[in-house]
Amino acid sequence: MLVVMKHSATDIQIIEVVDRLRQMGFRAERLPGSERTAIGIMGNVGYVDADAVAQYPGVKELIHVTKPYKLVSREFHPENTVILVGNVRIGEDFVVIAGPCAVESEAQLMEAAEGVKKAGARLLRGGAFKPRTGPYSFQGLGLEGLKLLAKARDLTGLPVVTELLSESDLEMVAEYADVIQIGARNMQNFELLKAVGKTQKPILLKRGMSARLEEFLLAAEYILNEGNPNVILCERGIRTFETATRNTLDLNIVPLIKELSHLPILVDPSHGTGIYSLVAPLSKAAKAVGADGLMIEVHPHPEEALSDGNQSLNLENFTQLMNEL
Amino acid sequence: MLVVMKHSATDIQIIEVVDRLRQMGFRAERLPGSERTAIGIMGNVGYVDADAVAQYPGVKELIHVTKPYKLVSREFHPENTVILVGNVRIGEDFVVIAGPCAVESEAQLMEAAEGVKKAGARLLRGGAFKPRTGPYSFQGLGLEGLKLLAKARDLTGLPVVTELLSESDLEMVAEYADVIQIGARNMQNFELLKAVGKTQKPILLKRGMSARLEEFLLAAEYILNEGNPNVILCERGIRTFETATRNTLDLNIVPLIKELSHLPILVDPSHGTGIYSLVAPLSKAAKAVGADGLMIEVHPHPEEALSDGNQSLNLENFTQLMNEL
Amino acid sequence: MLVVMKHSATDIQIIEVVDRLRQMGFRAERLPGSERTAIGIMGNVGYVDADAVAQYPGVKELIHVTKPYKLVSREFHPENTVILVGNVRIGEDFVVIAGPCAVESEAQLMEAAEGVKKAGARLLRGGAFKPRTGPYSFQGLGLEGLKLLAKARDLTGLPVVTELLSESDLEMVAEYADVIQIGARNMQNFELLKAVGKTQKPILLKRGMSARLEEFLLAAEYILNEGNPNVILCERGIRTFETATRNTLDLNIVPLIKELSHLPILVDPSHGTGIYSLVAPLSKAAKAVGADGLMIEVHPHPEEALSDGNQSLNLENFTQLMNEL
Amino acid sequence: MLVVMKHSATDIQIIEVVDRLRQMGFRAERLPGSERTAIGIMGNVGYVDADAVAQYPGVKELIHVTKPYKLVSREFHPENTVILVGNVRIGEDFVVIAGPCAVESEAQLMEAAEGVKKAGARLLRGGAFKPRTGPYSFQGLGLEGLKLLAKARDLTGLPVVTELLSESDLEMVAEYADVIQIGARNMQNFELLKAVGKTQKPILLKRGMSARLEEFLLAAEYILNEGNPNVILCERGIRTFETATRNTLDLNIVPLIKELSHLPILVDPSHGTGIYSLVAPLSKAAKAVGADGLMIEVHPHPEEALSDGNQSLNLENFTQLMNEL
Repeated sequence: MLVVMKHSATDIQIIEVVDRLRQMGFRAERLPGSERTAIGIMGNVGYVDADAVAQYPGVKELIHVTKPYKLVSREFHPENTVILVGNVRIGEDFVVIAGPCAVESEAQLMEAAEGVKKAGARLLRGGAFKPRTGPYSFQGLGLEGLKLLAKARDLTGLPVVTELLSESDLEMVAEYADVIQIGARNMQNFELLKAVGKTQKPILLKRGMSARLEEFLLAAEYILNEGNPNVILCERGIRTFETATRNTLDLNIVPLIKELSHLPILVDPSHGTGIYSLVAPLSKAAKAVGADGLMIEVHPHPEEALSDGNQSLNLENFTQLMNEL
Repeated sequence: MLVVMKHSATDIQIIEVVDRLRQMGFRAERLPGSERTAIGIMGNVGYVDADAVAQYPGVKELIHVTKPYKLVSREFHPENTVILVGNVRIGEDFVVIAGPCAVESEAQLMEAAEGVKKAGARLLRGGAFKPRTGPYSFQGLGLEGLKLLAKARDLTGLPVVTELLSESDLEMVAEYADVIQIGARNMQNFELLKAVGKTQKPILLKRGMSARLEEFLLAAEYILNEGNPNVILCERGIRTFETATRNTLDLNIVPLIKELSHLPILVDPSHGTGIYSLVAPLSKAAKAVGADGLMIEVHPHPEEALSDGNQSLNLENFTQLMNEL
Repeated sequence: MLVVMKHSATDIQIIEVVDRLRQMGFRAERLPGSERTAIGIMGNVGYVDADAVAQYPGVKELIHVTKPYKLVSREFHPENTVILVGNVRIGEDFVVIAGPCAVESEAQLMEAAEGVKKAGARLLRGGAFKPRTGPYSFQGLGLEGLKLLAKARDLTGLPVVTELLSESDLEMVAEYADVIQIGARNMQNFELLKAVGKTQKPILLKRGMSARLEEFLLAAEYILNEGNPNVILCERGIRTFETATRNTLDLNIVPLIKELSHLPILVDPSHGTGIYSLVAPLSKAAKAVGADGLMIEVHPHPEEALSDGNQSLNLENFTQLMNEL
Repeated sequence: MLVVMKHSATDIQIIEVVDRLRQMGFRAERLPGSERTAIGIMGNVGYVDADAVAQYPGVKELIHVTKPYKLVSREFHPENTVILVGNVRIGEDFVVIAGPCAVESEAQLMEAAEGVKKAGARLLRGGAFKPRTGPYSFQGLGLEGLKLLAKARDLTGLPVVTELLSESDLEMVAEYADVIQIGARNMQNFELLKAVGKTQKPILLKRGMSARLEEFLLAAEYILNEGNPNVILCERGIRTFETATRNTLDLNIVPLIKELSHLPILVDPSHGTGIYSLVAPLSKAAKAVGADGLMIEVHPHPEEALSDGNQSLNLENFTQLMNEL
């Protein structure tokens, strides 16, 4: 960290900051510049937070240099992480996860599962617990939905991915799911992150709607720090001023995460755009940019979907996309 | 809702959409315009989602007219909601909640509590469970922190506000807290909202970092919908491109929420700016704009704080601010 | 347009709004709904702005349905526009424009021009007038830079693209440039748009940093409306909360613009990411998503560049990228 | 500036960067840390851009410490700048500028001018040249509008503020206006900034829709650097994800600019919110936060306005607001 002193800071003010930092257990060095002095801070003594010196007289601003994550960092773990789900190697193969936004009925799910399998999907997605913006929207089938997912897995052999909304459902969801999804709205639900970190299940962690790259990696760090190394990241669009699309899919972050971290990263163009006609072109772009795979909403009859009908592909469009990929 | 058809939509396409909507249980009327036809949709049959017609041939876009919230709406509940906490009437008096970001020790908390009381604060805040961006930062004292808060209440008579991070801690937190805070990161943790909605405790609901006004009100609607009418909203800054401040405090939303909703709304200028020297001017602005109160971080010794030292006032500055307000 | 009336609006209030709209020359129809009445407005009588009724008693909000652009719209001009620059057909071929951010010297530009031509670029870019955030940064060589660009065109046969910052330089820039660039910062410099609209030069119009899709298309509409149909759009990254990259390249917009407009659209991954190691993956993504081409900063010696050294490819990396594309 | 080297950077890589920086004329010092080495850079040799070392092997990132502005900085000019317009002292008195968005007719302008004067406004605003998002909206009366503004000044004694859109109109606008406004869309129209910098007219510089604080100050620096010290800053709302208001008025920036700069700063709550019912509360908030004044849109008959009718106050509401202030 760097403490930048004001142009007008006195020598005594500088010495006070250096002394305080040393008392806190840091190594602190003066770095005189042409217009002002900076103080370099080295070392890390756990919980003590050097930001506390921000209010000392003469301090202009604090600049953080060291990245606050370690376990997810490629600097300290250069090889790609590969996560085995059934016989699928996420982080090595290019993997497509597909299925409906929500599990609605046995007929819907089985038709979707068989359809996406036939088209080449390697995992099946489907929400049993749905995080909806308003309380009056369809909230998912719950346990019944989980059982249908298990049935669809039996039918097709596809491992299933489903979202966990609450610690209290963890045991139940873990029993049925092959991959547990943590949705965008829960990316900083730290208690939920810690809870799934105590399992060894593969976790699909979606980027929060307004999460900076560093925050996204730190959310993953929470899971790894509890002992679970099986984290799959997923870019799903961020919130910006643009209203022509539901979100702005941020493909910049994909190759940047490949530089900074060893974890696999997927892309969800369905939520990322919110418009079904954009899903195919953005899927191709995601593959071209170096993503490890895709997560795509597919509904056998999107015009009857209980949620996200506007962004779901039907089986015909999905099959065509898979052929083009 | 309005379904806007394309310029090139055929009569048969328009009829198909109208028919489908009527099958779904909506009333649907054609509204021919000079360049294209729109279809007006009226009525609401529960979970069925009219968005599903977005993929019908000839459909250009969907426009939502009706607001999806009811219980929080001033249109259906014109009088202000007033929430009684101890002898404090939130929504009627201008109320200042103050205290440290995190409970760190008995000495720190008692000094803070007595100081903010003396200066005129009506409630005491303090975090026992802290949602931190990274796993290596101080995570709070937990139950010990709650007990210290209760002790501070005994000492000063100030009701206490503290954050709940997890459903599994609800019973424990509800035992000690007078007001339960749901933080920005959990604004769309819907299971947590439902859980606190089943109590009758006053809930302080902070706006999510990238929550639109409608989403903020819908999060409150989740709580009211479970039977708990005691919701206090709190604007705490949103995430924008601006990096000179930690967040952008959005005071626009305060009078707009007063128009749209009957719930009280507070402002947190500490998180909203992230810079202690901006807390006083933004506090005055929040009062001038019509907020029902403030939530301010005060630490007896900010330069020793374990979190958010950069944005906390000391007791002297807080006292001066209270006098100026 | 739709005028949504409040739940509490009286019949007389509704009639007053309808009457006022009719006086303004619009056709206005009542659309009664289950909870409130809306008023549909049809027809367009030039400058009169129906928004004026927003302040009538009983009015809740205004919703715009019709898109405000025509000439750029695919609805009214279904075939792709193809713009001929030299022998390059922009909008038909996949075209790469490459060259240095700024023209710095004859040696630098000739080396860049020959290098990018050899690698397969079809046009040469280079800034003679540079819009720099601060007044103390290199502002470009001006006329001398334009002359060097013409010399580079003579040497390589590549048409040249260069930015125009000011109406007063239009004649001079038009004399030397084959394509005139309007930069992101000037996307809503309407006088400059009108000025280039009065020429027949191909115009490369970059999206503003915070321009919504509709505003971007309306900026192009300004140019077409003055009589110049030769507009090439260019996505170059938008400003978001994410700070890990310089901008967030918004590839969503590319297929959406292809749906809505007949104009060609290029992608600039150099400004879009601000990090040279991300240029190659995002270039491939841009091609995959359906862009009509790329605009890439290439400097023979990025480590000596006077501007944007951080995001420029060297000739070796550019050649490799062109082979991979 | 600080060049942060990678964890894996070799000694030779570090030496190469240091050597290159010294060749470029900088003083460069190694600052070894616990996990990686940083290189501190001091001195400033004009146009040379140290960012060029970003692509050297072993370099992780660049961190800028020194602020790139000087003339606008309070660090180098501690006293407030006060700008005299007629007998109004901007930067000292709390000043309200009011008037219609656009000059529409003599009757409209004279009624507005007399009304706002009577209510206590100190300057009259009115647009003769209007920057409109689309080419089919009212573009202003041009020279005729300027003449009407001069007539209104004669009538009321109020100095007039009007927007300049183009260098080619500078002479004409300067002849009629007391204060020249540079609008948000032209905040980074650097040629226009340089042009008004060569006059001695007071310049009202509005913040760009997506301008960071530093960019805003640098735009002012362009004007001061040309020799014109008479710059009045104006916050007018930034573009965020929030769609409930037209813009998000950023009051955080007001006290922060007072800390960083000696220039006066006004607030425009009309554009900042886009909703007339929010103008009064945000005006009071702007005063409370420490702004030097307000710029408010007032139209004698907002329901007939040719632009921005939705956000204009009528004379009655404006008079009431002035009394409350």
